[in-house]
Amino acid sequence: MDTIRHHENSILHKEEHLTSSAFITDIVIGMSDGLTVPFALAAGLSGAVDSNALVVTAGIAEIVAGSIAMGLGGFLAGQTEVEHYDAEQKREYWEIENLRQREIDETKEIFAEMGLSPELQEKVTQEIAKDKNKWVEFMMKYELGLEKPDPNQARKSALTIGISYAFGGMVPLLPYFFTSTPFEGLIWSAVTTLICLFIFGYFKSKATGQHPWLGALKVTLIGAVAAAAAFGVAKLFE
Amino acid sequence: MDTIRHHENSILHKEEHLTSSAFITDIVIGMSDGLTVPFALAAGLSGAVDSNALVVTAGIAEIVAGSIAMGLGGFLAGQTEVEHYDAEQKREYWEIENLRQREIDETKEIFAEMGLSPELQEKVTQEIAKDKNKWVEFMMKYELGLEKPDPNQARKSALTIGISYAFGGMVPLLPYFFTSTPFEGLIWSAVTTLICLFIFGYFKSKATGQHPWLGALKVTLIGAVAAAAAFGVAKLFE
Repeated sequence: MDTIRHHENSILHKEEHLTSSAFITDIVIGMSDGLTVPFALAAGLSGAVDSNALVVTAGIAEIVAGSIAMGLGGFLAGQTEVEHYDAEQKREYWEIENLRQREIDETKEIFAEMGLSPELQEKVTQEIAKDKNKWVEFMMKYELGLEKPDPNQARKSALTIGISYAFGGMVPLLPYFFTSTPFEGLIWSAVTTLICLFIFGYFKSKATGQHPWLGALKVTLIGAVAAAAAFGVAKLFE
Repeated sequence: MDTIRHHENSILHKEEHLTSSAFITDIVIGMSDGLTVPFALAAGLSGAVDSNALVVTAGIAEIVAGSIAMGLGGFLAGQTEVEHYDAEQKREYWEIENLRQREIDETKEIFAEMGLSPELQEKVTQEIAKDKNKWVEFMMKYELGLEKPDPNQARKSALTIGISYAFGGMVPLLPYFFTSTPFEGLIWSAVTTLICLFIFGYFKSKATGQHPWLGALKVTLIGAVAAAAAFGVAKLFE
């Protein structure tokens, strides 16, 4: 699930200045992950144990583990990102003072890659280099590819995703509370979770500009395959 | 864990042209995630059940679920990323043909944001707009923030991360094979896993340019907190 996250985020990030949309996106991401892994775990156990209480206990443990790993992990990673940006920024200021010619060459190089003629590279670089703050900002963005991180956004996102993961994880687990055998629980769990995965996949794909029905199918498929595989493997270890 | 991934990837990505280093990074990422969640799940169950076989079954089911969600999810997300790039590229070519003036204004706008004077904005834009392919490439990168995705890298990464997750997950689980009570298993699992998390945290932080000891501590802390919380909550549901 992490790799999906990464790709989606690289698309989603562009819109993250719309805070409310980022919030909704975080909820959708957390929920669809939360739906997938606890669902597959519960399905796997259903093939191997005969007590609903055990499935529920394991599911709860997984939800707690997963949402803490996501929430706390994201929180700490958010701090690290801010520190990383500040350190690189300080280094750029230092380089502009002390290795001015090298920085000028690097700036020219960036414009050369854009396809500018040597003459314009020269002129543009001279203009950029006039204002120290603007120059550093330019190097941060175009040499290092770093945008100034909002010190709160990453943490807010992490918490939203962590909490949504926990809520999402309850969907596949709840049927095991209200049924008497793991098999019965599994049936209801699969029905409700696959429907929810499809709905979330639809909105997630819409938010990232993908084809919504195809995206919904993919998300549902991942959940179904993960659950089927977990079921099969757990049966072997029964 | 997903949010960590996302932040780390935004840093790691810059170095991804070094394929061998990307490969090692993927292994480290998959393993440290695989160490965390199955560890916490097994720890949680150790507080609630009295059979090692159950802990092992649940752990295996989680590993299968998690690595499929990661591997297959990443594989499909990689395809989507390539499709997304191609669609946007096609749109840019169309816009350059049919909405030329708007595209010229957008290009100027990009240079205005870099801090160039109106005169140079004009000149630079004229030069960029001469070569259609270069112009589209420029718009893809600087207007949309999209780099041409390597059609294979995302999938390769996803598979490497998925497989590493599975291997990482075996570390916290193996002690339960060789001990007779879940409590005994938990002790050995915690010792070996926390050591491994510390080592992986160290290398992961080094690879992303973070402070290695501090990073190692953070990664270990996340694992420990997740395991302790899962243990506590599962005890309530015992």
